Amino acid sequence: MAKPTLLVVDVQKAWDDPAFGQRNNDPSAEENVARLLQAWRTAEAPIIHVRHRETDPDWPMLHEGNPGFEFMDEAVPKEGELVITKEVNSAFIGTDLEERLRSTGTTTVVVAAFTTDHCGSTTVRMSGNLGFETWYVGDACSTFDREGPDGEVFPAELIHRTALASVHGEFADVITTDEAINRLG
Amino acid sequence: MAKPTLLVVDVQKAWDDPAFGQRNNDPSAEENVARLLQAWRTAEAPIIHVRHRETDPDWPMLHEGNPGFEFMDEAVPKEGELVITKEVNSAFIGTDLEERLRSTGTTTVVVAAFTTDHCGSTTVRMSGNLGFETWYVGDACSTFDREGPDGEVFPAELIHRTALASVHGEFADVITTDEAINRLG
Repeated sequence: MAKPTLLVVDVQKAWDDPAFGQRNNDPSAEENVARLLQAWRTAEAPIIHVRHRETDPDWPMLHEGNPGFEFMDEAVPKEGELVITKEVNSAFIGTDLEERLRSTGTTTVVVAAFTTDHCGSTTVRMSGNLGFETWYVGDACSTFDREGPDGEVFPAELIHRTALASVHGEFADVITTDEAINRLG
Repeated sequence: MAKPTLLVVDVQKAWDDPAFGQRNNDPSAEENVARLLQAWRTAEAPIIHVRHRETDPDWPMLHEGNPGFEFMDEAVPKEGELVITKEVNSAFIGTDLEERLRSTGTTTVVVAAFTTDHCGSTTVRMSGNLGFETWYVGDACSTFDREGPDGEVFPAELIHRTALASVHGEFADVITTDEAINRLG
């Protein structure tokens, strides 16, 4: 049986830009991403790096060619590891991710992502709905404050925790980095 | 240009089952769904009813043939209105919804859904990421308490509001029933 595939979503330098505001899990999320990558490399389990290429002029820090487009130091792909570039939140839309996972017989997808509630949650929801067993590594994710339609602002940590609660048990198992590494065995 | 398509997602009797716990927006969500349907019918704008057919033995109330599978009284399709049945959260996975929207030249999708953070949010995320202008009608949605991976329970109303904040401005415009009817014109 194929080993679980680690999907590292949008762990890019742009998130350090003050325009995004203050994050939660800073810097523990990227430290946990580094631990996941190390464990997956040691186990010779598959890794897919997903990065976001923005085209919206309002978010130049994620445009290709700008420094923010680069992977964070903790998440730089090694030679030979697969990199997929997406232009919307879901790593499954406008990419060949699903075909790649199916072609390697992948049954389990393990997601670490920036941000927890946008690209991470959307990718996890589709992964679960497409039939992959999905583990969402909560402490290897991070998000920002969000403002509701009526102007109410919710702090990043609350958005993070409610986003995890909404996917847990429905789309994915929400687990910690330690648990993901234990399960990899 | 095609009028906006109203997508009514999973407004089924099962949600009255005590096994799901207590909802928010009860009964205002379904009352607002009824108002949306009336406005769309009056404007002769397209309506698609999406219903959930569960196969998981843990959720028999949503199995086809059980009373909970039926549409709520406020959301019963009229003769000639399209009904799509799905088996996962997203109305776009395992259905021909995207092709149907494209074939009619639809550019705008308007979503009212049970539940706000599960099937509604997932459908809205995919709608936005597939390139449809998407309006999410918050006061015509409802959800339940959710429990996080560490056992923390978040009340339905908080889950509802944070779920809306996470999609607002990123995947969809989150608006009210009044605003949706105003925009329909």
